[in-house]
Amino acid sequence: MVQDLAPGQRLARGVARHMATLGFVTVEEFVPARGLRVDVMALGPKGELWVVECKSSRADFQSDSKWQGYLEWCDRYFWAVDLAFPNELLPDDSGLIIADDYDAEIVRMAPEQKLPAARRKKLIQKFAMDAASRLHRLRDPQPGAAGTWGV
Amino acid sequence: MVQDLAPGQRLARGVARHMATLGFVTVEEFVPARGLRVDVMALGPKGELWVVECKSSRADFQSDSKWQGYLEWCDRYFWAVDLAFPNELLPDDSGLIIADDYDAEIVRMAPEQKLPAARRKKLIQKFAMDAASRLHRLRDPQPGAAGTWGV
Repeated sequence: MVQDLAPGQRLARGVARHMATLGFVTVEEFVPARGLRVDVMALGPKGELWVVECKSSRADFQSDSKWQGYLEWCDRYFWAVDLAFPNELLPDDSGLIIADDYDAEIVRMAPEQKLPAARRKKLIQKFAMDAASRLHRLRDPQPGAAGTWGV
Repeated sequence: MVQDLAPGQRLARGVARHMATLGFVTVEEFVPARGLRVDVMALGPKGELWVVECKSSRADFQSDSKWQGYLEWCDRYFWAVDLAFPNELLPDDSGLIIADDYDAEIVRMAPEQKLPAARRKKLIQKFAMDAASRLHRLRDPQPGAAGTWGV
């Protein structure tokens, strides 16, 4: 239920729905590299990788000291905020998405900085492993005979 | 609940659990190309792609006219059957997995025939899209505002 989600997760829900209408799939709280965790990693039909960071308030944005570290892990970088967010805080050279619990809209397309091929390959592999492993845990919640999921 | 699954799906469940202990993730009923649908596609940590066809009975095996078409969509090809299955029916040059509802074991490793790099890339991309899209539908079962999932 949407009521059980934290404010940032509600934005992520709207973002994920909108990405689906663009033909993208998404994984939330994706870890591109040790110590980094992005709110939404979106994968497009041609292997495009977009990062969307969801900010529910001024404080949420101002306490984030890591976002510049995400830029090198995607082709395009977006902020997702709600209508009440003070947009002037956000850097002009990132993408901007306005979202709510139910949907979202890309208001400013992010500039593209293409990932190196080897990094894209590694990220798509990790995206596939994470998505399938989460799907498996949802479909078959019991641990395997060995008591581990391997991933 | 396992009781609600068809016999082939029960084998697939045991196979998926065992693959997880090997560090592989799985997607069931994966479509590598139009007109083909494999019971289990397993993806390994180095991008290995294994196909596992689950056969619950002699009739199930003998009515399958498509399996040779799957060989070119994986690095290794396995049959998964239960203990009661007449194994002598199965071709010697495929892998063999004995499975039940809860786990599985690789009894004969399949020979490796490596996928061409371009096909592997395409299959991993599709695997990622399918897994994430199914995960999304489970986590957020309502259709998006546009009434479509895009995938």
